[in-house]
Amino acid sequence: MSKAGGGESGEGGGAGGGSSSEKAQQQEDEALTGKALSAAGPGWTKVSCPCCVSERVEPLVLVKLGEKVRPETKRWIIRLIGATQKDGGAALLAHPGEDASGDIIMVSAPRCTLLRAAEELGLCKAYHTGDMEAFSYNDRDNFKDSDNMEAFLTLAERQHIVKHELDGLRAQRDVRIPGLPDSCTLQNRDNIWQKLCSAGVILDTFPLHNANQLKELSEAWYSGNQLAQPLDSVNGYFGSSVAFYFSFLDFYTWSLLPPAILGLSITYFSGSAQEEMVESVSSAKHPNDEDDSGPAVSGHMIQAMFSMLWSTVFMELWKRRSASLSYRWGTMHLAERFAEPRPGFHGQLGVNPVTGRVEPLFPEWQRDLRMALVSVPVVGLFLALVVLGMTCFYWGEAQVQHLHKDWDSMLSQVLLYLPSVLHISYTNMLSTVYRKVALSLTEYENHREQSAFEKHLTAKVLVFTFFNYFAVLFHIAFFKQDVPLLRKRLASLLIVTQLVNQVTEVVIPFLVDRFISGPQRRESEDDPQEDKFRNQITLPAFPGLFAEYIELLVQFGYLSLFSCVYPLTAVLLLINNLTEIRSDAYKICKLFRKPFSAPVANMGVWQIAFEVLSFVSVVSNCWLLLLSPRLQEICREGGMSSTNMLMLAVLVEHVLILIKVVLSVVIPDEPDWIRKKREHIEYSSMQALKQQTDPAAL
Amino acid sequence: MSKAGGGESGEGGGAGGGSSSEKAQQQEDEALTGKALSAAGPGWTKVSCPCCVSERVEPLVLVKLGEKVRPETKRWIIRLIGATQKDGGAALLAHPGEDASGDIIMVSAPRCTLLRAAEELGLCKAYHTGDMEAFSYNDRDNFKDSDNMEAFLTLAERQHIVKHELDGLRAQRDVRIPGLPDSCTLQNRDNIWQKLCSAGVILDTFPLHNANQLKELSEAWYSGNQLAQPLDSVNGYFGSSVAFYFSFLDFYTWSLLPPAILGLSITYFSGSAQEEMVESVSSAKHPNDEDDSGPAVSGHMIQAMFSMLWSTVFMELWKRRSASLSYRWGTMHLAERFAEPRPGFHGQLGVNPVTGRVEPLFPEWQRDLRMALVSVPVVGLFLALVVLGMTCFYWGEAQVQHLHKDWDSMLSQVLLYLPSVLHISYTNMLSTVYRKVALSLTEYENHREQSAFEKHLTAKVLVFTFFNYFAVLFHIAFFKQDVPLLRKRLASLLIVTQLVNQVTEVVIPFLVDRFISGPQRRESEDDPQEDKFRNQITLPAFPGLFAEYIELLVQFGYLSLFSCVYPLTAVLLLINNLTEIRSDAYKICKLFRKPFSAPVANMGVWQIAFEVLSFVSVVSNCWLLLLSPRLQEICREGGMSSTNMLMLAVLVEHVLILIKVVLSVVIPDEPDWIRKKREHIEYSSMQALKQQTDPAAL
Repeated sequence: MSKAGGGESGEGGGAGGGSSSEKAQQQEDEALTGKALSAAGPGWTKVSCPCCVSERVEPLVLVKLGEKVRPETKRWIIRLIGATQKDGGAALLAHPGEDASGDIIMVSAPRCTLLRAAEELGLCKAYHTGDMEAFSYNDRDNFKDSDNMEAFLTLAERQHIVKHELDGLRAQRDVRIPGLPDSCTLQNRDNIWQKLCSAGVILDTFPLHNANQLKELSEAWYSGNQLAQPLDSVNGYFGSSVAFYFSFLDFYTWSLLPPAILGLSITYFSGSAQEEMVESVSSAKHPNDEDDSGPAVSGHMIQAMFSMLWSTVFMELWKRRSASLSYRWGTMHLAERFAEPRPGFHGQLGVNPVTGRVEPLFPEWQRDLRMALVSVPVVGLFLALVVLGMTCFYWGEAQVQHLHKDWDSMLSQVLLYLPSVLHISYTNMLSTVYRKVALSLTEYENHREQSAFEKHLTAKVLVFTFFNYFAVLFHIAFFKQDVPLLRKRLASLLIVTQLVNQVTEVVIPFLVDRFISGPQRRESEDDPQEDKFRNQITLPAFPGLFAEYIELLVQFGYLSLFSCVYPLTAVLLLINNLTEIRSDAYKICKLFRKPFSAPVANMGVWQIAFEVLSFVSVVSNCWLLLLSPRLQEICREGGMSSTNMLMLAVLVEHVLILIKVVLSVVIPDEPDWIRKKREHIEYSSMQALKQQTDPAAL
Repeated sequence: MSKAGGGESGEGGGAGGGSSSEKAQQQEDEALTGKALSAAGPGWTKVSCPCCVSERVEPLVLVKLGEKVRPETKRWIIRLIGATQKDGGAALLAHPGEDASGDIIMVSAPRCTLLRAAEELGLCKAYHTGDMEAFSYNDRDNFKDSDNMEAFLTLAERQHIVKHELDGLRAQRDVRIPGLPDSCTLQNRDNIWQKLCSAGVILDTFPLHNANQLKELSEAWYSGNQLAQPLDSVNGYFGSSVAFYFSFLDFYTWSLLPPAILGLSITYFSGSAQEEMVESVSSAKHPNDEDDSGPAVSGHMIQAMFSMLWSTVFMELWKRRSASLSYRWGTMHLAERFAEPRPGFHGQLGVNPVTGRVEPLFPEWQRDLRMALVSVPVVGLFLALVVLGMTCFYWGEAQVQHLHKDWDSMLSQVLLYLPSVLHISYTNMLSTVYRKVALSLTEYENHREQSAFEKHLTAKVLVFTFFNYFAVLFHIAFFKQDVPLLRKRLASLLIVTQLVNQVTEVVIPFLVDRFISGPQRRESEDDPQEDKFRNQITLPAFPGLFAEYIELLVQFGYLSLFSCVYPLTAVLLLINNLTEIRSDAYKICKLFRKPFSAPVANMGVWQIAFEVLSFVSVVSNCWLLLLSPRLQEICREGGMSSTNMLMLAVLVEHVLILIKVVLSVVIPDEPDWIRKKREHIEYSSMQALKQQTDPAAL
């Protein structure tokens, strides 16, 4: 930051306003920042509190302005960012970049703002006793490192706090923004940042990479041959939502070892799985009682039983791991529901009965009504469209094959591909439309918290995507009851989709970066810092973790739902995931702009999705076992009617579901020591409430 | 209390100790109560704080001493009760009854002790704003009625607090109890009350009835023809655990209306359910497709579908009702896990990581190990014994009938009853043994909280009792597959067990009370108060709510598991419950000693039992529908194979379970307004923690 602010001070000086209205504006601006005590760093706005003064200011977030934004608008924004919260500002630090007319603003945060926001977010930090405690601003001196922000808060947390403060900016009265037409006048309590974005003043707000930290991280993460991921550094650099994804990927990959070993040994011992049926017919010639249990316990059954119980144990252990990670990363006690509502939330102004603050309120029943009467039917409609598409595809395929048999020409040969092509394009179109619809539906549901918004959005897209992926497989398994086809399909899906995913996710962005967009932003050591930051604008925005999670979920689906037909699933997935960890890490470090990441306590809705899948897997596995030709053969020889066999399968299914339910109840969701720490935090706050004698503070 | 303390002051005076050791004891006693400021009422021990002085003291709890207890021991106990908590006492008020040598001690509580205990228990009380807030001693002036204990705390709460304080008495150093052999010396941290009970000094501790309140309550509860129960008064007089039982009984009874009306109309419209099959055979002569859906939707099916969904909706609505009751009664924020462990808890002394207090600790994993390796196998063994008994019974019955056929004499006629008699006595014996075993198993598991102890004990007894009741019915339904027998059995069980229950629960105690024990304690208005209290000792102890709850659970089981075979179940249960409410109310008011009742936030383990039952009901109903002769007939005519029918039933079952799961997730467990109040309490305590600057208080 040595070169910064060379040209202009960025503050009140220069620009020499012409008209009287501009002068009045300037005076007002100066009144806004009147309480500033001293400069925090060259070119940065001033801070109002002595403890926040520091020589070195680290730019955290970059705001990209529209090209036509006038200098007075930029100055207004910079002053707004720097003003204290009492004056309606964000109490952050702003820097105008190279000069006052450039199209970027760099934002950083002083110590007090960071600490107050850490308290507001409900972050837990290391207390002097070594335990993690909910951070309290008044008690800040007892927290470790609370004087050194770079050690106290992670980079991701600091950047999230900046975004949080910017997003929370609200007009305190009706204000005209200088340099903008009158149509953009701010009403009282309007969200300023949203308004500026929709007016085209602000094009983008994104966190900046820290080259040194990034280099260290990538060396520890994917450059070498290391097996363990540096999860704490990932959490520090990219934030807990990204870190939770990679932790889960890690945990999941290692959890694949037992089923992979089992799958390998079953394939090895049973020779070839495909010839199994033939063998059983020729060898099982003694249908007496003692022999019955021997051959009936085939590789299929072992695999199925194992994978059904494995999935529950895996999920329960992950929950425990997730709880300890959230304790370690200080996100176990987040206070989002007590904070201000998310920017997009609207409603009638009123007093929040929980916090006693004046804010927009929206009745719960109205949201429920909207979900029940609008969202659910619309989602159902789209699911029906998927089924319709599939039906048309099968119908079309039958028609085309019929035609081909009749004609047998080149034309009909080409026509054979038509249904598949139509179906694929239909599916793609549908899912594009659906994503937009899901977004507006969730907007319409008007959730108060950002996390609730994301949860509902993810759930909607998730249900659809999952249905889209698995409808065909379920159709083959349950209606066609064609195990060989299912096996073929599953193997091809596993190999093809994974290859395609790796290519589209990593190889293509890598090539684009290397040969098309990369050369334009080749940078040398001597470039000014601003240019390096500016280069990050040219990187594509990070597409979010949805695609990554859904990939894992679909994998997990293949594994738990249909693994008994193809025992090598786990092996393939294990190999895939070992490369996936590296490619995902490379992707997020190098190929995209750094994403904002809110502190989260767990995987949210994804955890539920995995759990639901693990229960559905019991039904599908029992069904597939029932279809298994070998088992049918054995039962027929044992003199069992197909009704009795079905009854047996149903019984086994019920028992397995019971075991899974019992397992998931018996294994606690958080380790004992975490429970004690959590209860200690609860106890402390209860004690504090009792100590409190001042009724006004309630 | 006008007559009380006429003879003796109960304090240090009188008795004129002979030996020097007794004198030293007396001096020590006086030192203990040295800080007492003034007498609270005639004959009562003195209170140490000026605000607690009051003219009238209401006796809350009666302690019955052993007959051989010497006056010095009694004096020691009275002083212990009256001493401040700093001196190791209970900070309560004690009264020696008629004279210092009598075998009762009456205990009451001063204001400060009540208020501090209310805070410790985590009771919520009405704040000056009208909301319920967690009571805080420091903030007491802002709570309504906090100067009038009889309005602020209910009678049941005051009595529970007295018990809580007495149970919590621990020796602060090694102490010899005067008048007892040396073997009864108290070690440091020994639980004094437990020790005194096991030494035979204290025979019983029970809360006293308040004649006026009881009269008012009984008039509003069961004397008239009122339909609604005075639940708030029940909560005030008997405490929330009793009140929750009666609220549930009330809610459940009214919830029976829809299934009762449905059952009545089905019985009316379908003529006689027994002749249904015959009709369907003779009328359904057109097995074409259009007709298929018509007759297939029989009364059975409607009843079954309805009862499966009804049970989930009923339980979800009850949870909401339960949440509002717990808010209303101030028990939504209980702090038992932060309080001292229950008296029977033992472990190595250590620092509790949650509260930071020194107390016995017992590692969680050791408890889990004990449960997994001891409790679960033992419970399993007893369940196996039930099954064994049933098997022997069926075998014996077959043998005896075989004999009877061969011999056909008077002897064999008598022998026919032998298996039943043996089975019944075996079952009774088994359940008596099991109750003892369950108690010691739960003791052995060493739970820290009383509620956890009771939860585990109830769960153990519950599983066994339920198994005992339903094993035969499940056997008939699933193995014998004999619907007519099931119907016969169910009808007789419904009518016979309910009659038997009513007789054993109410009529016999009533007769005993009226003709045997009652005349001994006939009392007149002029009797001294002490004699009236003494009379309550002769009443039998209240046997607890277990039998009441299990009765409801078994009823609910009959209704939800097997209702489709006997549509009038709900009607019979409705009639039964309307009388049950009155007889239970009469019983608890008149026939037994008043029970202690800890504040609870819900029905605890019973809620889970009802929910589990409601899920099992789907499985059993689907199965019974499958067995229904009419449905089988229709399917056979429709050309469905039995395999397909079974598959259809399994499909329906899965869909219904899915619907139930979705319903129970979608219907929130607490009403919206309760959620807001709860979050407000959480928010307040979080805010308080942030305000707190004193690190020592953490």
